[in-house]
Amino acid sequence: MGLTFARFYAEMDRNKNRLEKARWEIATGAISGAVGTFANIDPAVEEHVCEKLGLRPEPISTQVIPRDRHAMFFATLGVIASSIENIAIEIRHMQRTEVLEGAEFFSMGQKGSSAMPHKKNPVLTENLTGLARLVRMAVIPAMENVALWHERDISHSSVERGIGPDATITLDFALHRLASVVDKMLIFPENMLDNMNKFPGLVMSQRVLLALTQAGVSREDAYSMVQRNALKVWEERLDFRELLLADEEVVKALGVEAINEKFDMGYHTKHVDTIFKRVFKD
Amino acid sequence: MGLTFARFYAEMDRNKNRLEKARWEIATGAISGAVGTFANIDPAVEEHVCEKLGLRPEPISTQVIPRDRHAMFFATLGVIASSIENIAIEIRHMQRTEVLEGAEFFSMGQKGSSAMPHKKNPVLTENLTGLARLVRMAVIPAMENVALWHERDISHSSVERGIGPDATITLDFALHRLASVVDKMLIFPENMLDNMNKFPGLVMSQRVLLALTQAGVSREDAYSMVQRNALKVWEERLDFRELLLADEEVVKALGVEAINEKFDMGYHTKHVDTIFKRVFKD
Amino acid sequence: MGLTFARFYAEMDRNKNRLEKARWEIATGAISGAVGTFANIDPAVEEHVCEKLGLRPEPISTQVIPRDRHAMFFATLGVIASSIENIAIEIRHMQRTEVLEGAEFFSMGQKGSSAMPHKKNPVLTENLTGLARLVRMAVIPAMENVALWHERDISHSSVERGIGPDATITLDFALHRLASVVDKMLIFPENMLDNMNKFPGLVMSQRVLLALTQAGVSREDAYSMVQRNALKVWEERLDFRELLLADEEVVKALGVEAINEKFDMGYHTKHVDTIFKRVFKD
Amino acid sequence: MGLTFARFYAEMDRNKNRLEKARWEIATGAISGAVGTFANIDPAVEEHVCEKLGLRPEPISTQVIPRDRHAMFFATLGVIASSIENIAIEIRHMQRTEVLEGAEFFSMGQKGSSAMPHKKNPVLTENLTGLARLVRMAVIPAMENVALWHERDISHSSVERGIGPDATITLDFALHRLASVVDKMLIFPENMLDNMNKFPGLVMSQRVLLALTQAGVSREDAYSMVQRNALKVWEERLDFRELLLADEEVVKALGVEAINEKFDMGYHTKHVDTIFKRVFKD
Repeated sequence: MGLTFARFYAEMDRNKNRLEKARWEIATGAISGAVGTFANIDPAVEEHVCEKLGLRPEPISTQVIPRDRHAMFFATLGVIASSIENIAIEIRHMQRTEVLEGAEFFSMGQKGSSAMPHKKNPVLTENLTGLARLVRMAVIPAMENVALWHERDISHSSVERGIGPDATITLDFALHRLASVVDKMLIFPENMLDNMNKFPGLVMSQRVLLALTQAGVSREDAYSMVQRNALKVWEERLDFRELLLADEEVVKALGVEAINEKFDMGYHTKHVDTIFKRVFKD
Repeated sequence: MGLTFARFYAEMDRNKNRLEKARWEIATGAISGAVGTFANIDPAVEEHVCEKLGLRPEPISTQVIPRDRHAMFFATLGVIASSIENIAIEIRHMQRTEVLEGAEFFSMGQKGSSAMPHKKNPVLTENLTGLARLVRMAVIPAMENVALWHERDISHSSVERGIGPDATITLDFALHRLASVVDKMLIFPENMLDNMNKFPGLVMSQRVLLALTQAGVSREDAYSMVQRNALKVWEERLDFRELLLADEEVVKALGVEAINEKFDMGYHTKHVDTIFKRVFKD
Repeated sequence: MGLTFARFYAEMDRNKNRLEKARWEIATGAISGAVGTFANIDPAVEEHVCEKLGLRPEPISTQVIPRDRHAMFFATLGVIASSIENIAIEIRHMQRTEVLEGAEFFSMGQKGSSAMPHKKNPVLTENLTGLARLVRMAVIPAMENVALWHERDISHSSVERGIGPDATITLDFALHRLASVVDKMLIFPENMLDNMNKFPGLVMSQRVLLALTQAGVSREDAYSMVQRNALKVWEERLDFRELLLADEEVVKALGVEAINEKFDMGYHTKHVDTIFKRVFKD
Repeated sequence: MGLTFARFYAEMDRNKNRLEKARWEIATGAISGAVGTFANIDPAVEEHVCEKLGLRPEPISTQVIPRDRHAMFFATLGVIASSIENIAIEIRHMQRTEVLEGAEFFSMGQKGSSAMPHKKNPVLTENLTGLARLVRMAVIPAMENVALWHERDISHSSVERGIGPDATITLDFALHRLASVVDKMLIFPENMLDNMNKFPGLVMSQRVLLALTQAGVSREDAYSMVQRNALKVWEERLDFRELLLADEEVVKALGVEAINEKFDMGYHTKHVDTIFKRVFKD
């Protein structure tokens, strides 16, 4: 679970960088006249005003700022929204009744579904999935806005009056909602272990497969040896380790000790701290 | 015309920067195993291979590189495609029979339309307009690809096998075609002047309006004085300057000399070099 | 011009049909319980209520009406919006200063651009171009809404609360605005003729080309004969008919009378009434 | 499960209708000359050829068929693709290891994942999810194609050469793949029952709630009575029915017999045949 959220942290860290770049890119100003030639106003005025407003002067403008800047801005919002959807869907999966490894916070006294008192739907992350679509829908119109006729036509204006407030406010709301969901999330480690053991030991099949080939068994034979035991786990929910220990060919190839050693969970988590250092630096 | 293309130069310069950023962002590699835990392979292998390939190791991966990187990449291609459309549409407008201030290169011996020997359609820029749509259509699926289930599902794969080659090759082709169109473009300066003088002197109406208000005429009166003469130009194609010189009220407010001085074209081009310096630096 | 608007009439007539179909398709109702099984409520109740509301009962529902219906509805709005853009762009082209074959209504006393008293921009059709983008952006989220998890998740809800009112109200407004623009449009037939004669007689080049081939001249020779004269019209604005009459080869192939006859405008309009009958029926 | 697939049947039946309409709508032809006026060719030729080709003559065309027809066609493909995604996602959910109520066909000897011999991923439905995105991405460019300049420009052509074959072939492939997946699907009824009983009896909570209110208990009290027992099922996996029978207040309100009667599964399936009749007619 730590890895999952470290992954989302890294993704959102990239998005923070993207948003800062997009904000920087769009933060230009122009006071260059009706066709951008400074005919009636000196460029110094533009520079002065832009500085007061914390903007850079647009190097070359027409009546308006070129709209590729806005397209890039809304495209970036669309990417961030897609990451929100990514995290929301992960949580929705965790909260499935049959999985239940995590859930949006639900206080015990709180009312659930109006019809079904026991139901605990991931309503916030489902909502976030929809909000992501709403933000993302601004991307294409923002790109269609780039091709203004000559010094500008007014076609982009109605679009931006819509998507400007809608996409930014919706994304802001969604980011806050997501932060709050993650902050207060319920985590159920026992269920994680239960789910991993639903087919006892089967998650270690790849490791056994590798060990067999490293012990000199041909890839094809190794695959077949693992698969015939794996299928029994799958169909009859028997214990994979015990099946292997009862399979003469496997025991002959690996030995009892090595088979047992393959079921050590620590094998899979030994590099978690390495990854954390790569993500969080310090 | 120089300003128009300086504007497109600045826009494409921004796009070059964006493309370099997008390329950098997507240039990561991962050899971290089936669920990204380095269970069966040391992180040092990933580092070594990535270095050989000119990639950075993905700080935290699952079975795959996180797809927000790809979404950002295709979104950037979509912005660039929109800029191509922007330039293409400008040229298509210039090449209109009624405007004809510029045109795609057409050698005199070359065949035109198969049905109409005189027709010189802006076929390359019309084609570029369509190609821009083709590149842009990759943006939304690339964003929909971000939300993979858990360590990854395979839903993004078919999408990327389509949009990966299609969007990059189409954009590459479109950029080369656009460069060639701009490189060989025909420019018709006489037609520009003709078009400006279609309604003789009228392009100076804003300057006269400002001069009147600066001379102490109320905004409302100034507007009315300019408009009554402007409409005669519009409807009867009379000469705006002559009309003003024959308008007692205007002459009284500005004087003959000042009126004449307002029709100096240099007034509008005096800052062109300033703008060029801002765009091209040196 | 009549043909142009007959074409738009036909397009909007198709759109009216599509809208009626889309409305019919979406006009279903469901009162089938939390998972659509009528466990706690009899199907007869659904039928009764739907009838009162002018809806058809949804043959099989879950907690909600299936969202492919809504996707089809918003897709249809997107097509209609694209037709609005089509008509708007035609009018914007007509209103170009250099073309000026038509224009949005502009009363003589009305103020134009605040900066430029003579400017008459096609502000309404430029606005319609943007509004079309706003309506169209609802299409993809509506399609992304179709894949609800199991009996329904709530992800579609926030999307529909946004696009439901926004897309329908924007389209309604845009249709009314477009109708009003077309109703009051200014048409300038003299300018149409002027534009056609900008390159005198050249619009007849295809007809001459066909006549030459029908008179036994090879396609290649005919093309060359027409093109060499067409280019002189293009470059020196000479009269195409006079050039042909002075071209011995052309005169030899067609004869003077036949050449003159090729410049009869009625040749091109002879089937206008046929087309009108096809479009307007009676 | 029958209801789930009846629902998909109904959705795909609607899509079949839509596709037939879209095909009908786009099946027009035009041989009306370079600007659509039949100047050089009689309308009778168009009628004759169209009849031979199984097309209707386009009532009014320019050089091309109006592109709103194509927009509607591709929009319809996009809706169908979204329904494919809908069904694919349902199956992917069913095939989750923790749910396992259904799965894509997997023959026992067949190799699974190359790394993990036991893994049975829903690779076909994951692939279908991606293919749906590929088809859907054609919708917006097809709508952007509607606004051709005047009698036509060529911008739509490159778009249609791309999306024409790609969207239709991809959809055709996806429909066949989906049909094959559904045809051969594995269904696990025991797992369905297991999943329903994961929280024993809890699925009946809504019915108990309704019964309590119908027995005269206030909505608020009823909700509280159900919820306090539901939570124990949720947290301790106790049996809901037994908890209710041990809850004096509930027993007082409903009586033992009525409580027991509320756990009859037939209550939920009694209208299944009614629904089937509505969907399949006969």
